[in-house]
Amino acid sequence: MLDRLRSLIGAENVLTGADMAPWCREWTGHYRWTPLAVARPANTAEVAAILRLAGESGTKVVPVGGNTGLNGGTYAEGALMLSLARMNRIREIRPAARVAVVEAGVVLEAMHAAAAEHGLAFPLTFGAKGSATIGGVISTNAGGSNVLRYGTTRALVLGVEVVLADGRVMDLMGALHKDNTGYSLRDLVIGAEGTLGIVTAAVLKLVPAPRAYATATLALSSLDGALTLLNRLQAETGGAVEAYEFMPATYMAKLAQHRPDLRQPFAEVHPVTVLVEVGATAPRDATPGPDGALPVVTHLEAVLAEALEDGALLDAVIAQTEAQRREMWARREAAAEITFTAPVLVDTDVALPLDRLQAFLDAMTARLAALDPGATELVVAHLGDGNIHYTAYPSRDDLALQVEIRAAVAEEAVGLGGSFSAEHGIGRSKLATLQAHKNPVALDAMRAIRAALDPTGVLNPGKTVV
Amino acid sequence: MLDRLRSLIGAENVLTGADMAPWCREWTGHYRWTPLAVARPANTAEVAAILRLAGESGTKVVPVGGNTGLNGGTYAEGALMLSLARMNRIREIRPAARVAVVEAGVVLEAMHAAAAEHGLAFPLTFGAKGSATIGGVISTNAGGSNVLRYGTTRALVLGVEVVLADGRVMDLMGALHKDNTGYSLRDLVIGAEGTLGIVTAAVLKLVPAPRAYATATLALSSLDGALTLLNRLQAETGGAVEAYEFMPATYMAKLAQHRPDLRQPFAEVHPVTVLVEVGATAPRDATPGPDGALPVVTHLEAVLAEALEDGALLDAVIAQTEAQRREMWARREAAAEITFTAPVLVDTDVALPLDRLQAFLDAMTARLAALDPGATELVVAHLGDGNIHYTAYPSRDDLALQVEIRAAVAEEAVGLGGSFSAEHGIGRSKLATLQAHKNPVALDAMRAIRAALDPTGVLNPGKTVV
Repeated sequence: MLDRLRSLIGAENVLTGADMAPWCREWTGHYRWTPLAVARPANTAEVAAILRLAGESGTKVVPVGGNTGLNGGTYAEGALMLSLARMNRIREIRPAARVAVVEAGVVLEAMHAAAAEHGLAFPLTFGAKGSATIGGVISTNAGGSNVLRYGTTRALVLGVEVVLADGRVMDLMGALHKDNTGYSLRDLVIGAEGTLGIVTAAVLKLVPAPRAYATATLALSSLDGALTLLNRLQAETGGAVEAYEFMPATYMAKLAQHRPDLRQPFAEVHPVTVLVEVGATAPRDATPGPDGALPVVTHLEAVLAEALEDGALLDAVIAQTEAQRREMWARREAAAEITFTAPVLVDTDVALPLDRLQAFLDAMTARLAALDPGATELVVAHLGDGNIHYTAYPSRDDLALQVEIRAAVAEEAVGLGGSFSAEHGIGRSKLATLQAHKNPVALDAMRAIRAALDPTGVLNPGKTVV
Repeated sequence: MLDRLRSLIGAENVLTGADMAPWCREWTGHYRWTPLAVARPANTAEVAAILRLAGESGTKVVPVGGNTGLNGGTYAEGALMLSLARMNRIREIRPAARVAVVEAGVVLEAMHAAAAEHGLAFPLTFGAKGSATIGGVISTNAGGSNVLRYGTTRALVLGVEVVLADGRVMDLMGALHKDNTGYSLRDLVIGAEGTLGIVTAAVLKLVPAPRAYATATLALSSLDGALTLLNRLQAETGGAVEAYEFMPATYMAKLAQHRPDLRQPFAEVHPVTVLVEVGATAPRDATPGPDGALPVVTHLEAVLAEALEDGALLDAVIAQTEAQRREMWARREAAAEITFTAPVLVDTDVALPLDRLQAFLDAMTARLAALDPGATELVVAHLGDGNIHYTAYPSRDDLALQVEIRAAVAEEAVGLGGSFSAEHGIGRSKLATLQAHKNPVALDAMRAIRAALDPTGVLNPGKTVV
């Protein structure tokens, strides 16, 4: 098998032994494995040939992008890993049609830079943007900080090229905003974690890059107050709020502890801190006025002043320079780093209907106290999407307790009409939760579809649905 | 079978003979059929029971909503039709979460009215809104006039309840903006034309209702000029353009001929007429200024004045009253009516990448002239979506010629990277076109998925993919 693979894509592109080290663990170190080998194909035809070879030899194949996942989605014990890193070409940017045609291995940050050269933006963004690849974001339907305005990956991908388990290439590379020619196979493949096919290329939707931002850090007394203010900001800006990131007191305390370099935004710690960013595409909002101020900033200031006046807001600070804006974002982007500071933790990623967010947090505080009175919590949220990253730190190293806490989070979320995996997906770590909480008819439908498209089970075994 | 059906849902809800008349034809009359019967279930449990009964008796089932389709999607010769008209309850509207929970039989216009009571909007809209139902718009992934700002149906449906072919109920009724718990079965069912399951209920996304509109009719010299102006308007309004409807000279001439009551907007006929509408959600744009004018209107006037000045625009008229706005819309909404005026016509619905629209129209004019020098064309388009409704009127009643023209339209669209069915779907009429132009691997994948979810072929046979 490996010899045939070497002759197919070149020996230098088949890594084994110590050369595979970077692909033998998830970045957090939580999952570790030893693959059969790591193949680095150069193009779609090579991916197809590898899958045909894998099918013939009964080899399992696990695709990998930037290795920034959190659910063991690339666990590959004994399997052939397929890294798309060499397929990193931006084939074409068509500014008039506002699309980019790219290969799966393009790093998200490189895509941002390429779009910016045309005054456009690919607005999907999150902490791991420097490593995460387009193939990975598509396979996980990645979310991040700008979902509020631009949607998740699914809303930003117009077309995909997918190699099926049997090596056939499914070309769905349309650059179209409307296409009702049968089932939306594109939407099915997006978020399928490489279990239905290997994404090799995509047509991405670009948007006008904001000409200016108004960014502020807000202090509020409650989550519901923050949501009410968000609706007000959305109306006032015509839906131009790009990010609305929720950081409660527990988050700010942990930030102060682990990143004292990132100063606290206010002299005192308020119950709720929010990072808000408004993006202005209109020249009328992004051209400095007679006083030298940007109208988008002046407008946000006026709306926030009104909210301070009528008590909707406790305090606010607006970024006056790009450095101040970067500092505000650094506080939020430190989330992954400050979450994984303790050796024992239960990190989760839930979504709730917007009118049930506070109920979930209240329920979890009570549940956690009942399960482990000494435990602490850390919460950070993409509030406008109803997406909460809830982390519990048990007071003792007890695997059974961790399992109980994780189950409680899923149960409370699902009980309130929510999801136990908002943006991190299923991978390997949430299979049992999926089994417990997904509608059983939907589970069966998933299994039937997987079996229909990959009857011999070549692709990413033991992930997403079993 | 019919006796068991009558005892299941009540004899008065099983229509046969003359009582079935409204369900024996598509509204255009192009397709006609005689169903076995029409069943009108009252709830999801009855739909499930009917499907179990159909499975046992080998009866085919064709779901029907408002009967406003154009592709024979509800053709039901000898089959049991399943009308969801009685399931027309709006179960719940939750303004804080901005969602509505509704049954499949709710008429689109009723949904508009219900959302409006809360200062919100369900923004999907098109000519047939007075008859089309939520189940129908979901099953066809309907588009319409506001896709530019709000997306197609897929972007506006957060959750669905679906009865599978075997009568099991798949509950995917989440009110969530992020939910990565496995394959997006919701997206798979949306647009599947009732071939993968019967949609019985849905969770719809609501948006803030615009507080005011600025609506104008524009005269331009070219399509590409219209697109450039659209990009300018989008930037100037921060993406608040809700509709940008393209009506070339052929359209305006046909309108003058068939609907002289709808006055022409300009003294002379220009190459391109566009209906543009901007929706203002912000109080700052929708509160009359000192001069009594709405800022959203004043702003559009200013942008258009600038465009007139620099030659991007030939002429423009802005609606000053709601009656004038209605009149502008009536000219566009007459499209279906003025299209179906001739006994012999080839109506199509294609999508193109935005930078290939003019190339498509040029190619078709040449192709049509070559095929039938006496033929005429009618074009109307949702320009910002790249969606063109192209209709050819052959000079003679020749079925082979119609087939040739239809094939030429599909071929030119696909050749330019476009779609041969932007929003009308496949139904029965476009099966051959699908076969000819869809990627064969995608076709196989569709067949495999259909067989996996409906192994005995109960649901809507002979539609979407065969």
